[in-house]
Amino acid sequence: VSGISLLPKGMAASKWVYDFGEGKADGRAEMKNLLGGKGANLAEMAAIGLPVPPGFTLTTEICTYFYEHGCTYPKELKTQVQQALALVESRTGRKFGDATNPLLVSVRSGARASMPGMMDTVLNLGLNDVTVESLAKQSGDRRFAFDSYRRFVQMYSDVVLNIELSHFEKLLDRAKEKRGVRLDNELLTEDLENLTKAYKARVELELGHELSLFPEWSNRCREFPEDPQEQLWGAIGAVFNSWMNQRAKTYRQLHDIPESWGTAVNVQAMVFGNMGNDCATGVAFTRNPSNGTNDFYGEFLVNAQGEDVVAGIRTPQELTIKARQSHGSELPSLEEVMPKVFQELMDVRKQLENHFLDMQDIEFTVEKGKLYMLQTRTGKRTAHAALQIAVDMANEGLISKGQAVMRLKPDLIDQLLHPTLDPKAKKNVIAKGLPASPGAASGKVVFTADEAVRRSQDGEKVLLVRIETSPDDIHGLHAAQGVLTTRGGMTSHAAVVARGMGRPCVAGAGDVHVDYGASQFTVGDQRTCVRAGEIVTIDGITGEVILGEVPTVAPQLSGSFGTIMAWADDFRTMKVRANAETPADARTAKDFGAEGIGLVRTEHMFFEGGRIVAMREMILAADEADRKAALAKLLVMQREDITELFRIMDGLPVTVRLLDPPLHEFIPHTEAEMASVAKAAGVPLERVRRRATELREANPMLGHRGCRLAITYPEICEMQARAIFEAAAEVGRTSQSGRTPVAEVMVPLVATLQELDLLKRVIEKTAQAVQTEQGVAFNYHIGTMIELPRAALQAGKLAGLAEFFSFGTNDLTQTTYGLSRDDAGSFLPEYKEKGIVEQDPFVSLDTEGVGELIEIAVERGRAARKGMKMGICGEHGGDPASIEFCEATGLDYVSCSPFRVPIARLAAAQAAM
Amino acid sequence: VSGISLLPKGMAASKWVYDFGEGKADGRAEMKNLLGGKGANLAEMAAIGLPVPPGFTLTTEICTYFYEHGCTYPKELKTQVQQALALVESRTGRKFGDATNPLLVSVRSGARASMPGMMDTVLNLGLNDVTVESLAKQSGDRRFAFDSYRRFVQMYSDVVLNIELSHFEKLLDRAKEKRGVRLDNELLTEDLENLTKAYKARVELELGHELSLFPEWSNRCREFPEDPQEQLWGAIGAVFNSWMNQRAKTYRQLHDIPESWGTAVNVQAMVFGNMGNDCATGVAFTRNPSNGTNDFYGEFLVNAQGEDVVAGIRTPQELTIKARQSHGSELPSLEEVMPKVFQELMDVRKQLENHFLDMQDIEFTVEKGKLYMLQTRTGKRTAHAALQIAVDMANEGLISKGQAVMRLKPDLIDQLLHPTLDPKAKKNVIAKGLPASPGAASGKVVFTADEAVRRSQDGEKVLLVRIETSPDDIHGLHAAQGVLTTRGGMTSHAAVVARGMGRPCVAGAGDVHVDYGASQFTVGDQRTCVRAGEIVTIDGITGEVILGEVPTVAPQLSGSFGTIMAWADDFRTMKVRANAETPADARTAKDFGAEGIGLVRTEHMFFEGGRIVAMREMILAADEADRKAALAKLLVMQREDITELFRIMDGLPVTVRLLDPPLHEFIPHTEAEMASVAKAAGVPLERVRRRATELREANPMLGHRGCRLAITYPEICEMQARAIFEAAAEVGRTSQSGRTPVAEVMVPLVATLQELDLLKRVIEKTAQAVQTEQGVAFNYHIGTMIELPRAALQAGKLAGLAEFFSFGTNDLTQTTYGLSRDDAGSFLPEYKEKGIVEQDPFVSLDTEGVGELIEIAVERGRAARKGMKMGICGEHGGDPASIEFCEATGLDYVSCSPFRVPIARLAAAQAAM
Ligand SMILES: [Mg+2]
Ligand SMILES: [Mg+2]
Repeated sequence: VSGISLLPKGMAASKWVYDFGEGKADGRAEMKNLLGGKGANLAEMAAIGLPVPPGFTLTTEICTYFYEHGCTYPKELKTQVQQALALVESRTGRKFGDATNPLLVSVRSGARASMPGMMDTVLNLGLNDVTVESLAKQSGDRRFAFDSYRRFVQMYSDVVLNIELSHFEKLLDRAKEKRGVRLDNELLTEDLENLTKAYKARVELELGHELSLFPEWSNRCREFPEDPQEQLWGAIGAVFNSWMNQRAKTYRQLHDIPESWGTAVNVQAMVFGNMGNDCATGVAFTRNPSNGTNDFYGEFLVNAQGEDVVAGIRTPQELTIKARQSHGSELPSLEEVMPKVFQELMDVRKQLENHFLDMQDIEFTVEKGKLYMLQTRTGKRTAHAALQIAVDMANEGLISKGQAVMRLKPDLIDQLLHPTLDPKAKKNVIAKGLPASPGAASGKVVFTADEAVRRSQDGEKVLLVRIETSPDDIHGLHAAQGVLTTRGGMTSHAAVVARGMGRPCVAGAGDVHVDYGASQFTVGDQRTCVRAGEIVTIDGITGEVILGEVPTVAPQLSGSFGTIMAWADDFRTMKVRANAETPADARTAKDFGAEGIGLVRTEHMFFEGGRIVAMREMILAADEADRKAALAKLLVMQREDITELFRIMDGLPVTVRLLDPPLHEFIPHTEAEMASVAKAAGVPLERVRRRATELREANPMLGHRGCRLAITYPEICEMQARAIFEAAAEVGRTSQSGRTPVAEVMVPLVATLQELDLLKRVIEKTAQAVQTEQGVAFNYHIGTMIELPRAALQAGKLAGLAEFFSFGTNDLTQTTYGLSRDDAGSFLPEYKEKGIVEQDPFVSLDTEGVGELIEIAVERGRAARKGMKMGICGEHGGDPASIEFCEATGLDYVSCSPFRVPIARLAAAQAAM
Repeated sequence: VSGISLLPKGMAASKWVYDFGEGKADGRAEMKNLLGGKGANLAEMAAIGLPVPPGFTLTTEICTYFYEHGCTYPKELKTQVQQALALVESRTGRKFGDATNPLLVSVRSGARASMPGMMDTVLNLGLNDVTVESLAKQSGDRRFAFDSYRRFVQMYSDVVLNIELSHFEKLLDRAKEKRGVRLDNELLTEDLENLTKAYKARVELELGHELSLFPEWSNRCREFPEDPQEQLWGAIGAVFNSWMNQRAKTYRQLHDIPESWGTAVNVQAMVFGNMGNDCATGVAFTRNPSNGTNDFYGEFLVNAQGEDVVAGIRTPQELTIKARQSHGSELPSLEEVMPKVFQELMDVRKQLENHFLDMQDIEFTVEKGKLYMLQTRTGKRTAHAALQIAVDMANEGLISKGQAVMRLKPDLIDQLLHPTLDPKAKKNVIAKGLPASPGAASGKVVFTADEAVRRSQDGEKVLLVRIETSPDDIHGLHAAQGVLTTRGGMTSHAAVVARGMGRPCVAGAGDVHVDYGASQFTVGDQRTCVRAGEIVTIDGITGEVILGEVPTVAPQLSGSFGTIMAWADDFRTMKVRANAETPADARTAKDFGAEGIGLVRTEHMFFEGGRIVAMREMILAADEADRKAALAKLLVMQREDITELFRIMDGLPVTVRLLDPPLHEFIPHTEAEMASVAKAAGVPLERVRRRATELREANPMLGHRGCRLAITYPEICEMQARAIFEAAAEVGRTSQSGRTPVAEVMVPLVATLQELDLLKRVIEKTAQAVQTEQGVAFNYHIGTMIELPRAALQAGKLAGLAEFFSFGTNDLTQTTYGLSRDDAGSFLPEYKEKGIVEQDPFVSLDTEGVGELIEIAVERGRAARKGMKMGICGEHGGDPASIEFCEATGLDYVSCSPFRVPIARLAAAQAAM
């Protein structure tokens, strides 16, 4: 195709303007970075021969240049714009600013991604007191011409000259009043002429006022520009200036769009859908964006401009007869009104899908029976539609299975797996927090885990509201429909546990102030007060907290879900495992396709019911003998749990991590609770108090936890190893499938080779003892977590002893960054806002810092132990960007919470392609 | 010299036994690793022609082999021992076990470093019922022979056969009773003969009893061995076995001696100092070990065995007439009693010092007028003596100045700078903690900082006792003579601050239980209770806590101190700076030779008096305006402080760190304190409460601190930069010396380039503003701390902005290890005990892990910025081993607390050599 720029970069830098029109274009769709999304697609449509009004695009590089050079343009720009304009003139047979045959243009911004907040569109540019007369003459419709002129003055004054719209609205109202009419289109032509004059007078007044305030702006215009060239450059400047306005900045921040991308500007010959009844304008999706069916889907208006369709004053008409019938509409469809144009549009639809290989969102205008395409872009769609369209297109042969897999954003899968709020329902949003675990849930507010359990046992649905949660609250999280916390981030305790259980969670809602004493919470200004027992709804996808019950829509997994997952698995090279402790979680994980358990957090098993009593007896034991007695009780329970996990995973590997959290997490800290613990454990209250004080730490995250506990109390390690191995022996002996368990024992928080050495001996000795006692062999491996910088650096040595590595990226991020994930919530949002971090490093792996340590560990570990098995079991294991890094780094598997397994399968497939 | 083993390692491995005697030796002094200290020095003495009884050494490699091969010996050993024994026989003209001319030997252990707890010595080995008769005949003294035999049986039974000494003591008492005498030497020859028989019968009884308990030991001996070969191998085995006994293990742990070193065994022909009045035995130091003067210093006994000198039953005699006179002794000196032997000994003394180039601690025996040297080793000495001897020897030309510098253990310097306990005083030690800051102090026990201030203002000396200290307690630490804490390690807050102030500190005395409520502490079993106001003494060098007052000795710095420091400075390449905030500390540092301040912890300036009020106003400010008003007050104070520091350092660089600790450290947490803060700051109590809650963090070490504060509140950073720069301008303008300040502004806890970028802009803008306002230029640099693993990895990027790096190894150790220094105290001791860490990584830099990150940062930083200035300002800056690492890594300076500056100067010199 002629016109594609293949110039080397150095030379291309001086090409600032790209033409399109008449089946030709300088640009193509893949040049979105340079031309913006709209410009690139216009070029593409022109290049493949679709009917696009001719025009040209000012590149995003101008925007970058503009901000790097004190808001000035490259010197070649003026000439290049004039040349491009001349080409449009020759293609349309009109002249810009010409008194008899004027060219009118639209000016639109066009960033890489569509971006609200920026200057959007100026239509009818080129109109002035002279050219308006030609337009009147040529169209044969003086009213249309002056209505266009009036709209242009208003639009231009608003977006380019920054004059309040209200001024114009007032004038319009006064004109209608004077005429005694109610609707704009009841105004007479002369009214519109006068109105335009009044508009321009007002503009002069406002500009003059501004100049009197800011005399240094003396070079600014003092009245509405009559000169089309001045109009054009004003509009271009307004687009570039709007790139840095506050709304655009905020939007970029929220959507992680770098400032350096810049925006392009599209200048295009005007076509009119409002020049009579042989004119129309419309928007369409090439397929249904809501459910994904292969139906043409859209609407149009006869004799209208694009903005009228959106404005919703007139009722738009359906495109197809089928749609009209199914919606029971009285208004005729395009298929009926303009059958020729409709057929042309159906051809365009097909051509676009065949060309762009994806569902398109298009805008078109019909001017006096001729179809013009004004825009095409990839259409937004629901998660369901995205899935359906990808599978259908692959089945239709439009795209490959691989492309179908690549096309689905893994996070969309989350929406398919959880109930969502009914989009049609009304919502009284009272606060917003972080969308910490997807899904929506309603329930009566409770403030304690115990209350959650009690009420839910009475058959009530409850929502647990806490300042923050601790392992003590696990039973409450289980019992509740969802959880709302006022502190903590995406990886706070509540968030992690809720995701693991598939419970919706909104975390860190800082505006919500919980008063446990009064059993209520207030929001922000304290005027909204919610008492225990009142119903509240949370949306874990948006982070919204909503007063009252909002109906939800249950997740429905279509056959396409299974299809895409199966395709993904064909491309995937990394295994996907789940983090799971309970049989329920393990079953969910397996149903979702987990290929093993990558992390059993054994401590979670100790928080429930009688177990915490035994655990506390162990902690409060006066000596080793007492401790061993308590451990004997725990052994029985732990063995049962692990047996069940081995059974469920049926021959798939199960990685069991030794006790990890500091012991103080098992001991309560209020006097009353301590007294009841003392009673339950049969020890003096004084000992509980003293032990609680002893165990208190300044920085528990860096304290006596992980393998350090096992070093101090080898008998705990021995008990846990025994539980694992006895379970392995038992399940191996009784396996129905013939598959025997693969037990992987994992030592957490290792910093030195010596720690691993010592504990490996204990574990191996126990394995041998159990094998001898039970007279049965079983398959086991001993490995270590790499979750401290020192461990990553020492990986070469550790690999001498460890049979596998599992990267604990939560702790590794905490230590590499020196950042507590429980405390980072107070300043990380500001860090994102100020551009210090692009992403919360607890959500998406910091590939530069933490990532380098992982790379070092992989390299050193595999150098010491060839082909060593390595995986990741932090929260990052379910994050697509992090999964991509894992694939690139050569990890063997990722492990994530059960509900993220499908996401990880998809992301892993994408990473492998 | 013939006999030195120069065999390659593979072959040397089969040489297990090294001979010495008759002016020849297989070994030499430098082979201490193989032969142990004693064996190597015996070989050396033999080789240089000193009169050493012939013998041989079984190497330390046998010990290692022994433990690696299930307590068995290398197969070549038996033959090699027999050959060596044959050589001793030929050199002495006697035969081992011979009935008429028996060879008797001593068997002694000999590790690399002398090590109590191990089997020490068996004398007279080879005696039995037959050989004792020959000894009697040859010595002409039957009583001597049987006394030797009796002692041998007792000693051998004790140390080799593990039979309780009390059995023999009882038998001895009974013999004396029967004879009606009081002293051992009043027993008749026949008594001794009977006693020996009784001893041996008892041995048989005990061994038989043991065998009945442990039948599996049936191959053990059942009676006292008559066979000299059996005696010999029994003694050798006892030495090797004792390497792993509990006392030896404990000693090694306390003195950081690796288990892998092993011990050697020395077998040597007996000589007798107790065969008549022409016999003697003695010990000596070649110089005075107490004050270092060049005087021969020792004592001897006529007609005695070595153990008699130590036993203290007879009063030993002086060696020289001078010593006898100065001590006013009546007993004649060796110089008088045996002038020829004395002269010989004086020659040996000179020869030894000339040869070993150090003060020696020797043992000698005179047998029938002939001098034998039994041992020489480097003599232990006080810190004062070490200094004096090194300087004297260099001045005498015995050693070079460099050798003198190398010879002083830097830690000894600490003893010279602080008061120490009078070594003659009695001490009632009630507990022991970590020796956290050197020096000794006595004072009345107080439990709060306020009480410390109040009482010390009343002129009382107080000792602050706390569970742990916080920045709130600084004024109390200042007011107290010393501080005792029950929690925390060598780098806990109390320890760090105390070292910085030069106050003695015992930290982490876990046996001490403080009851603030009762104003008392109890120790261990709770029987010892100390109430507020009672006097307690702490020894910061040993970690002892002592009841009552113990007199102390003030430090006295001799001229030699200045001499050695000046010599050290000649060799040193790294600069030494100090960490200091107060003028007093800065002056101390400068007096001790600091070449600048490497770390001004600005927050320390905010804790005192009115400042904390202003600081709290800042923290409690409702908005930015209030905050700025509070900051304006702080600016004045901060500027004054820094002005003073610049004045004192007079042109030397001063590195000022921006506010580092989390803000909650400035807010108290009890209700009463909060109320008074609210009153002082003029804000509602509710706001104080709320702010305290807001600021509370789960892991403050990883929380909102360091540069994160400056990012959130740029106005704090701006105020601090302004204070620094206004101070620089002022001092530069008024400098008397013509030298102008070098201000280094340091940004703490940087993790990302963006943080540094943002703050550098704020600081630079402030610098420019101050320069403009004041119309004066000043010298300043902006740098960053490298104290997070991520910063170390990103050093290449950071160096693009930072002009210098300062390694904050405290935080870097915490994060690299994932180890809180405030909490590690609960398990680090056990980690050392179990050999998991060799050293507390907060005391001595973990060169393998943390060190690798420093190396990475140095390499990447200097690659990006050539010759970039880098230093270390953690606690490790004053630790000799860490200083050695800093030198090797190419750092430009170390910065440590003022009282460690001389230590660092010396250590840096040693590292450079
Ligand atoms: Mg972890
Ligand atoms: Mg630090």
